[in-house]
Amino acid sequence: MAGRQPRVGIVDVARRAGVSVGTVSKALNGRGQLRPETRDRVRAAAQELGFVPSAVAASLHSGRTYTVGLIMTDHHGRFSLPILHGAEDALGWDETLAFVCDTRDDPIREQHYVRSLARRRVDGIIVAGRRTEPRPPLAGAVTVPVVYAFARSADPADCSVVVDEEGGAALAVQHLLRTGRRRVAHVTGPHGHASVRARVNGTSRALREAGLELAGEPWYGGWSEVWGRFAAAALVREHPDVDAIFCGSDAIGRGVADGLRDSGRRVPEDIALVGVDNWLPTAEGCRPALTSVDLDLQQVGRRAGALLLAAIQRGGTEPGTHTVPCRLVVRASSAPAAG
Amino acid sequence: MAGRQPRVGIVDVARRAGVSVGTVSKALNGRGQLRPETRDRVRAAAQELGFVPSAVAASLHSGRTYTVGLIMTDHHGRFSLPILHGAEDALGWDETLAFVCDTRDDPIREQHYVRSLARRRVDGIIVAGRRTEPRPPLAGAVTVPVVYAFARSADPADCSVVVDEEGGAALAVQHLLRTGRRRVAHVTGPHGHASVRARVNGTSRALREAGLELAGEPWYGGWSEVWGRFAAAALVREHPDVDAIFCGSDAIGRGVADGLRDSGRRVPEDIALVGVDNWLPTAEGCRPALTSVDLDLQQVGRRAGALLLAAIQRGGTEPGTHTVPCRLVVRASSAPAAG
Repeated sequence: MAGRQPRVGIVDVARRAGVSVGTVSKALNGRGQLRPETRDRVRAAAQELGFVPSAVAASLHSGRTYTVGLIMTDHHGRFSLPILHGAEDALGWDETLAFVCDTRDDPIREQHYVRSLARRRVDGIIVAGRRTEPRPPLAGAVTVPVVYAFARSADPADCSVVVDEEGGAALAVQHLLRTGRRRVAHVTGPHGHASVRARVNGTSRALREAGLELAGEPWYGGWSEVWGRFAAAALVREHPDVDAIFCGSDAIGRGVADGLRDSGRRVPEDIALVGVDNWLPTAEGCRPALTSVDLDLQQVGRRAGALLLAAIQRGGTEPGTHTVPCRLVVRASSAPAAG
Repeated sequence: MAGRQPRVGIVDVARRAGVSVGTVSKALNGRGQLRPETRDRVRAAAQELGFVPSAVAASLHSGRTYTVGLIMTDHHGRFSLPILHGAEDALGWDETLAFVCDTRDDPIREQHYVRSLARRRVDGIIVAGRRTEPRPPLAGAVTVPVVYAFARSADPADCSVVVDEEGGAALAVQHLLRTGRRRVAHVTGPHGHASVRARVNGTSRALREAGLELAGEPWYGGWSEVWGRFAAAALVREHPDVDAIFCGSDAIGRGVADGLRDSGRRVPEDIALVGVDNWLPTAEGCRPALTSVDLDLQQVGRRAGALLLAAIQRGGTEPGTHTVPCRLVVRASSAPAAG
């Protein structure tokens, strides 16, 4: 048997230092009036015994537990993990730890976790969505501050942090235009998705501002490589003059790259490509490597963490939706056409 | 301002029910002797006021906090997230929540999190590795049970749960032989990696048991698609009679599939392929879809969670390494050759 040694308690420290438990508490918390030599004796005793002050006991005084919940739903972690990393960055300043609860898109699990977090007296909750669609606020009597990250809450009284997906699409198209492309098509995900709408709007706006129009209608389909391959083959038959394709995701972009190669078109010489997500395995596995719009989810997590800490200190969130800009990561697929 | 309402305390429940705080505690915890009508009145009052019993206060009695730490290091979450899901499955039976701490491969962060978890009096810790190499045990005076998942601890007195990677490789090769292949080559990751060695050993063993030999030496390289493409082109020049390639990862397998197509070889008609990881975006994006060895990391997490709960109840872990078998997921890339 290994692992558990008897835990050193405050009583042991008091006995070793020859003082009362109250004196140990004062000495270690820096409160009350003590002679410096008493304080030093207590601290030396605590260190000798390897005494670790308990955050559980401390929380009974401060009213805070220095814990938060991170509710997420994302089996592959592509969206949630960068948000977790960003939130950790922000919460680390405050020595706050996050309970991570994966609801697996199941409302029963979500309610279970909300109750479980309430019983542990977390100081606040971050709800990390996987989609841009607004989501219903957390059910039940949540008495601590909540910040929604990526998927904003449908209740305007809540506090949310979202990505400027329309601005990200505009960045992609402006980049294509700056490198000399003029006939831009758009192959994207399912019609009706909020992300898809935002990306279509950003694409149209950037083209309009340059006095141009989209080459044909947007091509709506799935978020898959198979759809990208299929769409690329059909697109070059229907619009042989297209010289750039903005793809709604990296998976679609990778499929488009393969479909164009199969159709005898060269990327980037004949047609430039840009995707969305900057998901390294897909963007870097693409032939050639895919220029991509990074949604900067780590920054979404950082903002959500910072807003949550501020709300905890203030005693409540301020309503509103905060928007984080995208970044463009340029790779070989959008190099300027020769000549 | 939204989010924080005054929290209902045990005193409020006592006042509403017209009883003492001690009576509320007895009624809600089912302890002591109370008249049924008193118990019912207290419970009704607690429900009306939305009183949530505090796990923090409860833990002062039970000596447990019903929290554990999950220390991980894995930026893409390919390895850690399935382990987290499995651990959640196991810990859920006990209403235990996990603090997730990402060390980002930084020993300073790891020590910081170990101290932070100790101060929160977690009942135990799961350390989820990203690699098969044994790792040093957690530094510092860890007084609670620890279970190592995926990467085992270098200390044989610790408790670890690992994947049978050698058995997984044997599964892949046995499948290729059963579908009629005879000349099997192996393209894999960096020489010296424990995972690479285990997969080479499993490959050789399965071939030997069938009275066969590997076609040439293993091809050692990176865990990337680029390496797979390069290796495939070289391999078919050097061993034109090869009819199957077992690839050390899905990324390598996907590169091999593209490299074979570029060399005019058909998958699976001429050459069958199997990868490792069963990582859906890569395995399903492959042309054709890639048969793959699934390391069943969710099961690793489930075992680690169950072992940790048992150790918490018993007061310590039992030394030893527990091995979880792999599963083979068959897709188009290994269909039997025609004829």
